[in-house]
Amino acid sequence: MKPSGPIPADYIRRDGALMIGGRSADEWIGIAGDTPLFVYDLAIVRDRIARFRAAFPGVSLHYAIKANPHPPLVRAMAGLVDGIDVASGGEARIALDAGMDARRISFAGPGKRDRELALAIEEGITLNLESEGEAERALAIGRGIGRTPRLAIRVNPDFELKGSGMKMGGGAKPFGIDADQAAQVVRRIVDGGGDYRGLHIFAGSQALDPQALIEAQASALALAARISREADVPPPHVNLGGGFGIPHFANDTPLDESLVGDALSAALAGRDPILADAEFTIELGRWLVGEAGVYLSRIVDRKTSHGETFLVVDGGLHHQLAASGNFGTVVRRNYPISLTNIADSATVETVSVVGCLCTPIDRLGDHVGLPRAEVGDVVALFLAGAYGASASPQAFLGHPPPREITVDGTGIL
Amino acid sequence: MKPSGPIPADYIRRDGALMIGGRSADEWIGIAGDTPLFVYDLAIVRDRIARFRAAFPGVSLHYAIKANPHPPLVRAMAGLVDGIDVASGGEARIALDAGMDARRISFAGPGKRDRELALAIEEGITLNLESEGEAERALAIGRGIGRTPRLAIRVNPDFELKGSGMKMGGGAKPFGIDADQAAQVVRRIVDGGGDYRGLHIFAGSQALDPQALIEAQASALALAARISREADVPPPHVNLGGGFGIPHFANDTPLDESLVGDALSAALAGRDPILADAEFTIELGRWLVGEAGVYLSRIVDRKTSHGETFLVVDGGLHHQLAASGNFGTVVRRNYPISLTNIADSATVETVSVVGCLCTPIDRLGDHVGLPRAEVGDVVALFLAGAYGASASPQAFLGHPPPREITVDGTGIL
Repeated sequence: MKPSGPIPADYIRRDGALMIGGRSADEWIGIAGDTPLFVYDLAIVRDRIARFRAAFPGVSLHYAIKANPHPPLVRAMAGLVDGIDVASGGEARIALDAGMDARRISFAGPGKRDRELALAIEEGITLNLESEGEAERALAIGRGIGRTPRLAIRVNPDFELKGSGMKMGGGAKPFGIDADQAAQVVRRIVDGGGDYRGLHIFAGSQALDPQALIEAQASALALAARISREADVPPPHVNLGGGFGIPHFANDTPLDESLVGDALSAALAGRDPILADAEFTIELGRWLVGEAGVYLSRIVDRKTSHGETFLVVDGGLHHQLAASGNFGTVVRRNYPISLTNIADSATVETVSVVGCLCTPIDRLGDHVGLPRAEVGDVVALFLAGAYGASASPQAFLGHPPPREITVDGTGIL
Repeated sequence: MKPSGPIPADYIRRDGALMIGGRSADEWIGIAGDTPLFVYDLAIVRDRIARFRAAFPGVSLHYAIKANPHPPLVRAMAGLVDGIDVASGGEARIALDAGMDARRISFAGPGKRDRELALAIEEGITLNLESEGEAERALAIGRGIGRTPRLAIRVNPDFELKGSGMKMGGGAKPFGIDADQAAQVVRRIVDGGGDYRGLHIFAGSQALDPQALIEAQASALALAARISREADVPPPHVNLGGGFGIPHFANDTPLDESLVGDALSAALAGRDPILADAEFTIELGRWLVGEAGVYLSRIVDRKTSHGETFLVVDGGLHHQLAASGNFGTVVRRNYPISLTNIADSATVETVSVVGCLCTPIDRLGDHVGLPRAEVGDVVALFLAGAYGASASPQAFLGHPPPREITVDGTGIL
C-alpha cells in the first residue's frame, strides 16, 4: 500500500456518508444528475478568507481566478475578496461578468495579445506589464483609443520562494521585468502618460513552510522599496504575490498562515517611507479554493489482474490531470482519496483507482488503501477545487465534460 | 543550446517559407484567419498509409482515432483505412458521423458505461471487452434491447513491447483480460449468445526499434493461437495492436516498417491452423498522423531576462501539452521546432520559446537554436498531428481554442 495525502479537516461523515456542505456527496450527485462531478463548497472558501482576514489585517486579498474559473464560484468570490487577478482576456471577461469592479481586476501573463491589452484598457483593468515591449504596446493602444491605461509592473524578482512547487523568480524567467530594469520602465510609464498603479512581485507557488514565505515577502517589500526609490515614484499598490500551499501528499503539513501574517505586519510597520501610502495585496488561488473542491466519480468496473485489484471509474485524468501526476510533477504521489460511503464493517484493501481513459497514465490512486468497494460505489478525490476541471484535457478521448456545481449549505449557487 | 528533434522529411521550404501541402504555412494562417493554428496535411497521411500497404500486404489497417479526432481528417481517413478504433461513445459518434461502417469500428477502453455499451450494440460496433464484468454487462444489455452484441476480447498480454513509450502488457494492468483468463471469457461469449469477433492484443506504444515490434507481433500471434486453442474457437479477427513510433527527439531514428512487415508476413505464413481464416489488423494512430500536423503560433513578445532570450508565443501547453513535456514524460526534451520563414541571412541564436500561459511549465522550446526571430514571426512546432489539440487542457487560463484545419494540396477539407 502506498500512502495518500491528508483529507482536509473540513469534511465530516454522517453515518458513514461523506458530507459536502449541508448534504451528502451522493445527494449532490442526485441533484447534479450524474458523475463525474466537481462539487465546490463555498463555506470552505469563506473559512479560508476569514482565516486570511484574521492573519493579515489591513492587507488586501485578491483571488487568482486561474485556480478555478467556475462562474458561480467567481460571482460569489467577487463579493468576498478585494480584487481578482486574471491571466487572459477570457478570464477578464469572467471576472467582469461576475460583477467585479474593473478597477479591482489586474491582468498578468506573458504574451498578452493586442486585443487583450485593448480590452483591459477599455474596461479600466490594471495591466501587470511583463516586458518593456508590452509597456510600449499598452501605451500606444491607450493613445490609439483615447484611454489612459492603468499600468503596473510585474517584476521578475532577484530572489526565490524557497521550497515552492513552482519557482517564478531568482533567475532568467519569461515572467515580468528583471528587477534591475524595473525602475526605468516605471519612469517610462509615468513619462509616457500611463496611470502608474504599482508593482507586482510573485516569487513562486505552493509553499508550505511559513519561514520561506516570510522571507519572500520581506524580500518583496525590500525590492518594492528599492525599485520605487530608484524610479523616485511611490507605488499606489504593491502585490506581494501569493504562494500559500496546501498539503497534497502524506507528510505534508499545513501552512500556519498566522505566522506569516504576524511577520508581515511587523515588516509593514517598519517599511520604507516611499511605501507609506501603498495598498498591499496578497494574491491567492489554490489556498482559497483547492481544499473546497471534491471530484466524484463512480466505479464502473472492478477487476483483478495478476493478483492486483483495479477500480475503474467514470472519471479520469481528462478532468483531474494534476491528481494523475502528469501536470508539472516528476514523481507521482497520491492525492487524498476515499469513498463517499463507508460501512462500519468495511475492511480496507489495497487497490489502484484508474480512470476510464485508454492510457496507462490515467491513474487517480496508485495502490491506495480503501474500504472494500463495488461497482456503483463513488470515489471522492479531494483537493479538486483548484487546477482541476479547467486545467485538464477535457476533450481527450471524446468523453463528455464533467459536471461542476458550487454549493453553499444545502443549495446550489 | 539544447538539441531539438528532427523535422519530418515531408516538409520542404520554398524561398525560405515552410510549405505545408501546396501552400506556405503563412498562407494557411491567412486562410484560417489567425494563430494559434493546427494544420494537418492529408498528403502525409496518405503517404504513411501507402507505406503501410506496401509493407503489410493482406493485413488490415485500423486508425486509432484517439490520436486525432478532427472530423474532416476522420472523414478522409474513413475512406483510406479498413476500420477505426474508438475509446469512448463520443469517439464512436465521430467515427459513425465520418461515414465509417459500424461493422468496421471497434471500441476498446476500460470503464465503458452502460450507455456506451448500448450505443455500440445498437449500432453494431465491435466491443473489445476489458473484463469479465464488462462481458456480462454487454451480454445483458444485448438481451435487453434484442440485439446480438459483437464482442471481442482485449487481452492483457503476458509479454511487453520492449522500449515502448507506454507499456500496456507484461504485468498487472487495468486494460484487458489477463491472458490466462481469456479463453474462458471467449467461451462465455459464445455460450452467452454473443457474436464472437476475436482478439485484441495491444502491448505498448511509440516503439522505434523494429526488432521489438517483430517480437511483440510474434508473441501476439502465438498468444492468439494459444487462447483460441484453449477456448477451441477460431477467432474471426485478430488485432495485433500498434505501437509504431515516430522520432520525437534528437538521436531518435525512424522506424523501418518494411522490416516489421517482412517478419510479420513470414510469421503469418507459418501461423497456427486455428488462425487460418482470421483477418489480421494493425491499429495505428501516431504513426499515421503525428508527422502530418504542424502547430503554428505567433511571437507576441521578445524579451531578455538575465541574459537569456525568450520568445513568447500566442500558443502554449493548453494546445500542445505533450510538447511542453508534461504529458506522461519524466525528462523534458525538445520537439522539432522552427520558424515558418527563414531569411538566407539569418543567424542562429539560442532562445527559449514559451507559451502565453502564466505558468513556468509552459515551455515549447527550451534553449533551442532558431534563426533570429522578431515579434510577429511565426513558430512552427512539428509532430502536432497526434495527441495535440485534443490531448491538451484547452480551457486552462481562459484562452480561446486553437484553430484546426485539415488540408489536401491547396484546399481545406
